Amino acid sequence: MTDTPHRAILLLHGPNLNLLGQRQPQIYGTTTLDEINERVITRAQASGVQVIALQSNHEGQLIDWIQQYGPEIDGILINAGAYTHTSIALRDAISGLNKPVIEVHLSNIHAREPFRHHSMIAPVCVGQVAGFGWRSYLLALDGLLGHLGLLES
Amino acid sequence: MTDTPHRAILLLHGPNLNLLGQRQPQIYGTTTLDEINERVITRAQASGVQVIALQSNHEGQLIDWIQQYGPEIDGILINAGAYTHTSIALRDAISGLNKPVIEVHLSNIHAREPFRHHSMIAPVCVGQVAGFGWRSYLLALDGLLGHLGLLES
Amino acid sequence: MTDTPHRAILLLHGPNLNLLGQRQPQIYGTTTLDEINERVITRAQASGVQVIALQSNHEGQLIDWIQQYGPEIDGILINAGAYTHTSIALRDAISGLNKPVIEVHLSNIHAREPFRHHSMIAPVCVGQVAGFGWRSYLLALDGLLGHLGLLES
Amino acid sequence: MTDTPHRAILLLHGPNLNLLGQRQPQIYGTTTLDEINERVITRAQASGVQVIALQSNHEGQLIDWIQQYGPEIDGILINAGAYTHTSIALRDAISGLNKPVIEVHLSNIHAREPFRHHSMIAPVCVGQVAGFGWRSYLLALDGLLGHLGLLES
Amino acid sequence: MTDTPHRAILLLHGPNLNLLGQRQPQIYGTTTLDEINERVITRAQASGVQVIALQSNHEGQLIDWIQQYGPEIDGILINAGAYTHTSIALRDAISGLNKPVIEVHLSNIHAREPFRHHSMIAPVCVGQVAGFGWRSYLLALDGLLGHLGLLES
Amino acid sequence: MTDTPHRAILLLHGPNLNLLGQRQPQIYGTTTLDEINERVITRAQASGVQVIALQSNHEGQLIDWIQQYGPEIDGILINAGAYTHTSIALRDAISGLNKPVIEVHLSNIHAREPFRHHSMIAPVCVGQVAGFGWRSYLLALDGLLGHLGLLES
Amino acid sequence: MTDTPHRAILLLHGPNLNLLGQRQPQIYGTTTLDEINERVITRAQASGVQVIALQSNHEGQLIDWIQQYGPEIDGILINAGAYTHTSIALRDAISGLNKPVIEVHLSNIHAREPFRHHSMIAPVCVGQVAGFGWRSYLLALDGLLGHLGLLES
Amino acid sequence: MTDTPHRAILLLHGPNLNLLGQRQPQIYGTTTLDEINERVITRAQASGVQVIALQSNHEGQLIDWIQQYGPEIDGILINAGAYTHTSIALRDAISGLNKPVIEVHLSNIHAREPFRHHSMIAPVCVGQVAGFGWRSYLLALDGLLGHLGLLES
Amino acid sequence: MTDTPHRAILLLHGPNLNLLGQRQPQIYGTTTLDEINERVITRAQASGVQVIALQSNHEGQLIDWIQQYGPEIDGILINAGAYTHTSIALRDAISGLNKPVIEVHLSNIHAREPFRHHSMIAPVCVGQVAGFGWRSYLLALDGLLGHLGLLES
Amino acid sequence: MTDTPHRAILLLHGPNLNLLGQRQPQIYGTTTLDEINERVITRAQASGVQVIALQSNHEGQLIDWIQQYGPEIDGILINAGAYTHTSIALRDAISGLNKPVIEVHLSNIHAREPFRHHSMIAPVCVGQVAGFGWRSYLLALDGLLGHLGLLES
Amino acid sequence: MTDTPHRAILLLHGPNLNLLGQRQPQIYGTTTLDEINERVITRAQASGVQVIALQSNHEGQLIDWIQQYGPEIDGILINAGAYTHTSIALRDAISGLNKPVIEVHLSNIHAREPFRHHSMIAPVCVGQVAGFGWRSYLLALDGLLGHLGLLES
Amino acid sequence: MTDTPHRAILLLHGPNLNLLGQRQPQIYGTTTLDEINERVITRAQASGVQVIALQSNHEGQLIDWIQQYGPEIDGILINAGAYTHTSIALRDAISGLNKPVIEVHLSNIHAREPFRHHSMIAPVCVGQVAGFGWRSYLLALDGLLGHLGLLES
Repeated sequence: MTDTPHRAILLLHGPNLNLLGQRQPQIYGTTTLDEINERVITRAQASGVQVIALQSNHEGQLIDWIQQYGPEIDGILINAGAYTHTSIALRDAISGLNKPVIEVHLSNIHAREPFRHHSMIAPVCVGQVAGFGWRSYLLALDGLLGHLGLLES
Repeated sequence: MTDTPHRAILLLHGPNLNLLGQRQPQIYGTTTLDEINERVITRAQASGVQVIALQSNHEGQLIDWIQQYGPEIDGILINAGAYTHTSIALRDAISGLNKPVIEVHLSNIHAREPFRHHSMIAPVCVGQVAGFGWRSYLLALDGLLGHLGLLES
Repeated sequence: MTDTPHRAILLLHGPNLNLLGQRQPQIYGTTTLDEINERVITRAQASGVQVIALQSNHEGQLIDWIQQYGPEIDGILINAGAYTHTSIALRDAISGLNKPVIEVHLSNIHAREPFRHHSMIAPVCVGQVAGFGWRSYLLALDGLLGHLGLLES
Repeated sequence: MTDTPHRAILLLHGPNLNLLGQRQPQIYGTTTLDEINERVITRAQASGVQVIALQSNHEGQLIDWIQQYGPEIDGILINAGAYTHTSIALRDAISGLNKPVIEVHLSNIHAREPFRHHSMIAPVCVGQVAGFGWRSYLLALDGLLGHLGLLES
Repeated sequence: MTDTPHRAILLLHGPNLNLLGQRQPQIYGTTTLDEINERVITRAQASGVQVIALQSNHEGQLIDWIQQYGPEIDGILINAGAYTHTSIALRDAISGLNKPVIEVHLSNIHAREPFRHHSMIAPVCVGQVAGFGWRSYLLALDGLLGHLGLLES
Repeated sequence: MTDTPHRAILLLHGPNLNLLGQRQPQIYGTTTLDEINERVITRAQASGVQVIALQSNHEGQLIDWIQQYGPEIDGILINAGAYTHTSIALRDAISGLNKPVIEVHLSNIHAREPFRHHSMIAPVCVGQVAGFGWRSYLLALDGLLGHLGLLES
Repeated sequence: MTDTPHRAILLLHGPNLNLLGQRQPQIYGTTTLDEINERVITRAQASGVQVIALQSNHEGQLIDWIQQYGPEIDGILINAGAYTHTSIALRDAISGLNKPVIEVHLSNIHAREPFRHHSMIAPVCVGQVAGFGWRSYLLALDGLLGHLGLLES
Repeated sequence: MTDTPHRAILLLHGPNLNLLGQRQPQIYGTTTLDEINERVITRAQASGVQVIALQSNHEGQLIDWIQQYGPEIDGILINAGAYTHTSIALRDAISGLNKPVIEVHLSNIHAREPFRHHSMIAPVCVGQVAGFGWRSYLLALDGLLGHLGLLES
Repeated sequence: MTDTPHRAILLLHGPNLNLLGQRQPQIYGTTTLDEINERVITRAQASGVQVIALQSNHEGQLIDWIQQYGPEIDGILINAGAYTHTSIALRDAISGLNKPVIEVHLSNIHAREPFRHHSMIAPVCVGQVAGFGWRSYLLALDGLLGHLGLLES
Repeated sequence: MTDTPHRAILLLHGPNLNLLGQRQPQIYGTTTLDEINERVITRAQASGVQVIALQSNHEGQLIDWIQQYGPEIDGILINAGAYTHTSIALRDAISGLNKPVIEVHLSNIHAREPFRHHSMIAPVCVGQVAGFGWRSYLLALDGLLGHLGLLES
Repeated sequence: MTDTPHRAILLLHGPNLNLLGQRQPQIYGTTTLDEINERVITRAQASGVQVIALQSNHEGQLIDWIQQYGPEIDGILINAGAYTHTSIALRDAISGLNKPVIEVHLSNIHAREPFRHHSMIAPVCVGQVAGFGWRSYLLALDGLLGHLGLLES
Repeated sequence: MTDTPHRAILLLHGPNLNLLGQRQPQIYGTTTLDEINERVITRAQASGVQVIALQSNHEGQLIDWIQQYGPEIDGILINAGAYTHTSIALRDAISGLNKPVIEVHLSNIHAREPFRHHSMIAPVCVGQVAGFGWRSYLLALDGLLGHLGLLES
């Protein structure tokens, strides 16, 4: 692992993800968004990488943040939730960023309703991790760190 | 991590993956399939899990192996290559196995030709990791080990 | 009708509905959104039910409100306007709420342009009332109250 | 409410609705078609409106009745059942009637199989009420009476 | 029944059918492929017809067998499993055979996922029997024997 | 075979099947509908099962009969003819019956025009037999009897 | 014109055509179905051809009549109304008749809603006349008589 | 019939129709285009109407003629041949003419290949006659004359 | 040009357009959004028209502004960016405004990915200008001014 | 503006545009094609650019002209009329020209029938101007001149 | 090779092929149409076959030539260019010719844009050669000569 | 022709082609696969090129051979039979080979069933020859040799 004292990534959560762990625990588990953020932050820290974690139900807000934090970060982990499947605007924001973005999903979207099989942002992302619950985020983090050359193994 | 002395997983590679690293290195990198297998084996060993790595260009052979090794293993990592998108037979083999299967792809299939966006096996897999090159396999391994409760963190 | 002193419902109006009655009165009538809200409030009061009426042109805001008021209410009447046909995020918000939601439309959306025939939120709602102008809201209210067991007849 | 001593409406039920309450009560409830008719009749009477209630499994019979009773009635409540989704003939009969018709469904057809999402008769109806069980009929009645100016509130 | 001392038919089973009875018995029952073969053989023997029963997970192997046994047999019973829906090659093999082929399915494929509704081989088969479990094979055998004029009744 | 003194099944024929054997004998053979009925009746009698055989060109009539005879019978053999492909009403009637129904076709509908490939009633039937001419009925009968546990072998 | 003392044709009118001239005269004109029948009868008489004119809203009835009168007539003029676009059963009845059938439409169906552009019966008819109002019937009659060799010029 | 001494119509034939009668007589008959023109001219003369008959394989030429003769004529009979199905330009020419146009086809285009079922010009024509061979033209002429009020009966 | 001292137009920019000129200059050029606004303002001033220029990444905000400024302005120039292709809500806002709106695009959207070919707002706009870079805005301005009668030539 | 004494552009009008102003003036206005040509010529002259204006109803003629004038001109303004939506040949001609082409439309094609929404030539043009009537040509001219660096502002 | 002193074939080139070799030589090579014609003529002469080589940008002209030269020739080599994908008229001309026609393409149309994958004329041609540049013509010539029995080997 | 003493090509035949000449000779002719191979070998020898001819019904075997012989050969002639239309795996094998591959078909696949019109491997092949029977192979050979610069003429 190279020495990268000031590396940072953005961890973006889309609509309805703020309620994680509180609602329908039988489906989504009891892990809350805060706990997921904490785990990502802890693991990233081990590689000397800072994490800015944000959630919004607003498509425009997610775009604002990508634009606002874009210049200072090294990459993005994004679970765009429902906007994954419909937002060309989010795709354009990622496309314009020119930094590595990893697409994360708690559930295996390819095993759900047909309208969740297609990701509008996938073509402008490095890769996709889906179906591992909260662990999807850690796998995606490893994928991003690996892509950035910040991971051993 | 619980003590699992005799845990084993199947690592299946589909058509054309045997040539990895030898051909079109500018696209797929210079990592060979043997090197990928070795990395997966090494990492799995750290969790006390044995890996049976196999590759075939034959759809039927992949199914034979799933049936043959199915009873003795704890899960499968599969990069079904082109059969990902067309093989209902492979889907049925996985579906009948009743053990966790993780779908792996070197490239981000959702960013390629439309006929590669759809995975016929996704609905019967636990999750999907795509787009991280050889590292996709390690992330998928972590996903599977996590799913099996064989991973810390 | 059971005694329900502290019952409350959320009355949500989506994009462009704030201009109701002011614009294109020849089409949408001269009834304003305030007047509709008032009529719903009055009628709900007769069943001892409080109404929280809100309107926004922002998809994210509608989701925020569903999340914010969700825990305190017994059900929702929603005219999601144009978001009816495109918002998976709204659908997820409703789906996660686990309380009865009634879909309301002023016009008969099934008699308009094809892209208005499909409702993205219908599969997670109890029922749909469409085509009765401002009266759609009162019928939907009755439907919700009936569903909640708060209506006689 | 204006004085309308001789007002009448037609209440039409399509195929398989005659068995309501007798079969699959766990799904459709224990309310029979007779009970629904009775409730509609009672409620309509309160507004001085007579109800002619008829059921048939025959598409042609439903059209015959629309033609036969058309001249004497003020409007129709119709649950065309399965014919809702396929009958252009029924649509033409309604279209030719030139009187207000309300489409009723016990279940939320938009939440069921895709072939039930589309209503062939909706474009020639005033509005649609779906998903409230037997109460759908009463809401539809109110919608029709309101449309005819026979309802206060 | 005419005297046909040397009549023979091919009984072909496609991918994953070798595990019948061993896996997911709650779905497919506890009857094994050997038991099915035995029942078909016994019943065919009653009509003086020999049965060659073969199973493979390989599309190419199924075609090889059709070509290899084709000249010596009077007809085929085939449950092509998943290849039913995708294999043009199998269709061509049957089409080139110019002998009666009966399509068999354990489950009612028309009641399952949409991709199982279409049979690529049906247009070149005599008929199809689906949905009767292991009994489908016996019905199909009767159909073939009847078609060949080898059955009374 | 269990003792079932009062078992009965309904044998329903849809539109245009009454002319069987009289018209286009070069296509449909010279076997008449009466002869088919007779063969089914005779074969069912051998298992102690009574057969009520009816034909109608009216979709509504077929539904009426399913409703009328439904309570007294053990299952249905239905060749719905052209209504197979379009009748949601028939599907609902079968679906509401909650007794085993077998779908029969004289010709191999999957080898004919595309609009005959899809069966609207298949998803609510036990199984389908198609392509064996009049013998399809006998195979279907065996399938139904087997399903009811009224057949040996 | 050859001498054909006992020639006869069937003139069939489908759903809603019985109200012709009575309703929506601004659209369909004031000519009634009786008047159309009379004009067809008069013109046919000039060629020594008898006309049996019938109307029904029931798809099954139309099929019954085709079967009943089929053996005695020389051809059919049919305006199947809405059933034109959906009835495979009617198509099969015509197809089985093996006598010339002419498809008639008052309006130009190809200039109306998309679902009226396709005729399910056209492939089994000799020809189609559409768009000339009541005169469509006379043109179709001439077409049929010409086809039968019963017309000069 | 009103007195119309200077009435005239345009009779347009599209691509490949010039070879009528010369090629594939077993399909299209032995009647030539000249003979068809002659019959139309003769029949039109009886109503005092002049006929300008033209044929071209060039889409542009057909449009030129519609524009050139448009001001002087009372209506058009057009068999646009293959351009019927593809030419928006022809449609626009007809649409801009503002005079009655009748669409003629020798064969029943609705009974042929799917790409011949759709007419691009139908929505801007009065009506369509198809399937009666050369007689289609005479029926279409009668339809046009009737539409213009130039025909008795 | 008529004298219009108090004329004003709204210049709306949708998601990601705020970064114009700063990012991917090789694609979108080095002209910033401020410079574009300035050029539009200057040119409009020459016709005595004031310009209110606003940008937002929020769909709801764009609608809010259309509603807020609608009453005071004479027309809108809108580059809705990615919302062009998905926003029915924006379409409704424009539709309800009842003032001329011109659709602007920097790039030729019809030459890009298929999902950018369709504009959801086009049917409620006066016209569209696409593909001329920053100059698209000036052409669109001229188009709007011309439409409003505020331009000579 | 650079000094370009011998600059020239081709102004191509497709089918039916020659009748502009003469027919349906209530729709297309009273401006004739000659007047439009004159306005374009005058405006182009101000930038020292010559205009060659041509119209044809023949697809092939438009291609001939593009090939013939291609070498001598600097760019093309083309309103291909109906050929816009269907002509791959025109697209290839433009594609092979390798000079800037601007697509012009009098009406807003995106607000008309669906078959007019798609432009076959758009992907090989610089940009598109649609919906401003005759003024569309002047805007397109400005767009072309701007693209060629022949315009100030 | 049989003695065929007066054998002749038509070599037809469609739109934009006249510019071959002059434009975009980096794509289509520097071989001109004249050179291709010369090579085909030379090679055909070796088999005693005369070649009539013609090119037009006009769909109608190509049809005219097929009709004009049809009676005197033994077959056609046609590169219909863009008309390959859209022209039903050309298809009908070929279909009516009843002589062998070979479809030629310089580029591999199946590897280009989707709208070039489908050939409207293929179903009425003997075969297709695509992707070999100017050599496609010589291969197609050999194919035609072989089909006519005019080639050895 | 350059001197290429050790040039070699692979001649691959897919499923069911081994039976060529033996079955359905009325359709596919009496030429056997061996005879075709011999003709290709003989003709290739004339250009100093060796031919390795192989056939398999197994998709995986075809891929194995492409991988196995790939390094030693200069190009491939492949008639993938039914796998042409479905095999992404074969496409990937060809795509990874980076040597010229020519697609051959005995029949004109574009004139057969729609599912044979699309070639999955065409986009990664140099060209396609189809419809000339066994001669297709010789034309394809010439095409490959020409592409490799091993052919005069």
